[in-house]
Amino acid sequence: MVENLPAVPDDLHNSNNGLPSSNSDTSLPYSSIVNLDRGDTVLLESYWRKMRKESIVEIEGWEFLSYASDLKSVCWFMMPELRDAIKKLHALVGNAETDDRQIVLGNGSTQLFQAALFALSASSDGPVNVVAAAPYYSGYPDETDLVRSSLYKWSGDAKDYEKQEAYIEIVTSPNNPDGSIRGPVVMSNKCDGEGKLIHDLAYYWPHYTPITYQANHDLMLFTFSKCTGHSGSRIGWAIVKDIDIAKKMTTFIVLNSIGVSKESQARAAKIMGVVCNSYQSFKFDGSNNNKESQLFFEFNRHLLKERWEKLREVVKQSDRFLLPRFQKTYCNFTNESFETYPAFAWLMSKDEEDCGSYLEKKLRVVARSGNRFGSDPKYVRINMLTTGDDFDEFLERLSNIKDITF
Amino acid sequence: MVENLPAVPDDLHNSNNGLPSSNSDTSLPYSSIVNLDRGDTVLLESYWRKMRKESIVEIEGWEFLSYASDLKSVCWFMMPELRDAIKKLHALVGNAETDDRQIVLGNGSTQLFQAALFALSASSDGPVNVVAAAPYYSGYPDETDLVRSSLYKWSGDAKDYEKQEAYIEIVTSPNNPDGSIRGPVVMSNKCDGEGKLIHDLAYYWPHYTPITYQANHDLMLFTFSKCTGHSGSRIGWAIVKDIDIAKKMTTFIVLNSIGVSKESQARAAKIMGVVCNSYQSFKFDGSNNNKESQLFFEFNRHLLKERWEKLREVVKQSDRFLLPRFQKTYCNFTNESFETYPAFAWLMSKDEEDCGSYLEKKLRVVARSGNRFGSDPKYVRINMLTTGDDFDEFLERLSNIKDITF
Repeated sequence: MVENLPAVPDDLHNSNNGLPSSNSDTSLPYSSIVNLDRGDTVLLESYWRKMRKESIVEIEGWEFLSYASDLKSVCWFMMPELRDAIKKLHALVGNAETDDRQIVLGNGSTQLFQAALFALSASSDGPVNVVAAAPYYSGYPDETDLVRSSLYKWSGDAKDYEKQEAYIEIVTSPNNPDGSIRGPVVMSNKCDGEGKLIHDLAYYWPHYTPITYQANHDLMLFTFSKCTGHSGSRIGWAIVKDIDIAKKMTTFIVLNSIGVSKESQARAAKIMGVVCNSYQSFKFDGSNNNKESQLFFEFNRHLLKERWEKLREVVKQSDRFLLPRFQKTYCNFTNESFETYPAFAWLMSKDEEDCGSYLEKKLRVVARSGNRFGSDPKYVRINMLTTGDDFDEFLERLSNIKDITF
Repeated sequence: MVENLPAVPDDLHNSNNGLPSSNSDTSLPYSSIVNLDRGDTVLLESYWRKMRKESIVEIEGWEFLSYASDLKSVCWFMMPELRDAIKKLHALVGNAETDDRQIVLGNGSTQLFQAALFALSASSDGPVNVVAAAPYYSGYPDETDLVRSSLYKWSGDAKDYEKQEAYIEIVTSPNNPDGSIRGPVVMSNKCDGEGKLIHDLAYYWPHYTPITYQANHDLMLFTFSKCTGHSGSRIGWAIVKDIDIAKKMTTFIVLNSIGVSKESQARAAKIMGVVCNSYQSFKFDGSNNNKESQLFFEFNRHLLKERWEKLREVVKQSDRFLLPRFQKTYCNFTNESFETYPAFAWLMSKDEEDCGSYLEKKLRVVARSGNRFGSDPKYVRINMLTTGDDFDEFLERLSNIKDITF
């Protein structure tokens, strides 16, 4: 099983390193691959170029030599200024409760997901079943089964789960890959084994989706990558109600990597501070329009909305694909109603059984196939946060699809 | 088993967060705990304070948004400038061969150790036995058995290993905790199972030990923490001969944390560059004495040597303890002979069966007990790279040990 793991199976990287695949047919209309398989977040870069001065971090050589940050905290390797910045950001947005909860830091929410599996299964006898409703994030199965743990194992689609055994359900909302708003599903069917929940709320921020409630679940995962776009920093955090679970998660992070880069921690604190500062003294009442371009979430939602509108238009014209639709919903943060604009487009081919192969052969566009998400290969996941060049080229090729013949 | 893992079982942190333990007897002569259990590297800070201007790193908000760095490399999340800096540093010091080898980056060598276990055991049927000669680094057993992998399991002291099964031996040289220079031991006894080696060379740098050969093993681990002292950055690297092993290690790092902080990578490249620059145009012939205080390894070996001499003097006076002795050996890097000055002192009590309890009760000094290293509790490991205040206080208390009565 481990042997069959992809060489570079992350949330960003296709199997041929972005280079043309081996069957390079020179008769194809396009010579270069457009890679939309990756989960990179480059769309958000333009905001940070605008704010380059405000967001500079400077580190001298003598700083951050110690592993430790705050020995009195459960998560003792976390810098207090980062903890405070995370709490301030959630308080501003109103998307998650942080009072009377532990915050555990990780090298991205990827590491924290594994820390959560460890913590939630540590007192079980056999391997705990890990499930998520399909389509689920393609990383979960591979991460769960990475070293064939005896504590937990991947058990597939939560909708099919009926074992009378302990389980952990991952609830991803908005969902990766399809942007849907979700709750747990195992509870509602036939299973009565002991169940625990991990809420992966990576995309529950107001550039992607309306903030409809202050999330208050037992164990919630967030990531700097999808919040501000800084995927290269590898910063994630968990908000945890039960202090014993938080301690076990900390143990995992310590034994797995002895904590988290302090350079990244310092920078994340600074960047989150810039986001919060952009809202200081701003009111959502139209009275300060010229300041709106400084507002982090509004600025980026605008960019993302524009891409979604362009994509919907091209898809409509081609009449060969379908995209999910999202209702307008009232957002408690912005006090207005808008649609969800997911970070990924979950594109379905009306005619082709294998949408990924079709796009790659026909358009030299690489997208992640639906079967990687426990779903149908007539779907692909398209990264909406890719570079402007790649996105425009994708739209261009998609627009011309009817004119292309082999 | 997992339940019994220490809450904070890292290389730095004692079980009571540096606070007095629960049996706080106010009749004890010292009110504060001196914690020498940790593996922190603060001694090296003074060099970086001297070089503060040369070693500044400045990062703007728009930088490092992408997960990827170099998609053409096996370790595609590693920045080319860091790979080049690592190769340049090894070339300068002459401690490890890097030509025609892969470099894999990790969140400290802790994560890379686990990546190596994964890569070396991925094609095996049952759990591969992981062994190291006692006394071995206390992190190896806990890290190996963290999630009870079916791929590998901790199997104790390499000197006792006689199973006819596949095994992985970790060779740590200079050794943590005792500073000894080591080679593999399983080969030489009765086992004929298939064996693979991990060489942990964290301390094979010329501030700790003479460089006697250019290491050329199949899989070697190094860490920024012990090289330059930047433990908070969580940067480690593996030098790997077999490209398939390097690919599997990369897969592990990707699935475990989708790469390594770019802020830390940028800083590590800068810091290593400062170390290399300090040697530019310097000759070890006494012709440029006033520049010698700029030389990274010489500056820090001098500090460490001073601490070792002070400790040996106090130990000699007390006549209650023993320290290991090290022969002077010729160093190919400095062209002179000197002793090993390990980052830890492996202190043995002549009279007490439990040296750790004795030191804690008598002196309120916390050190890591020998039994954590698969050895005898009459030993403890003392961190020689701790703060100056802690080290001086430790010496002071040790000097007065004969005057203290209960």
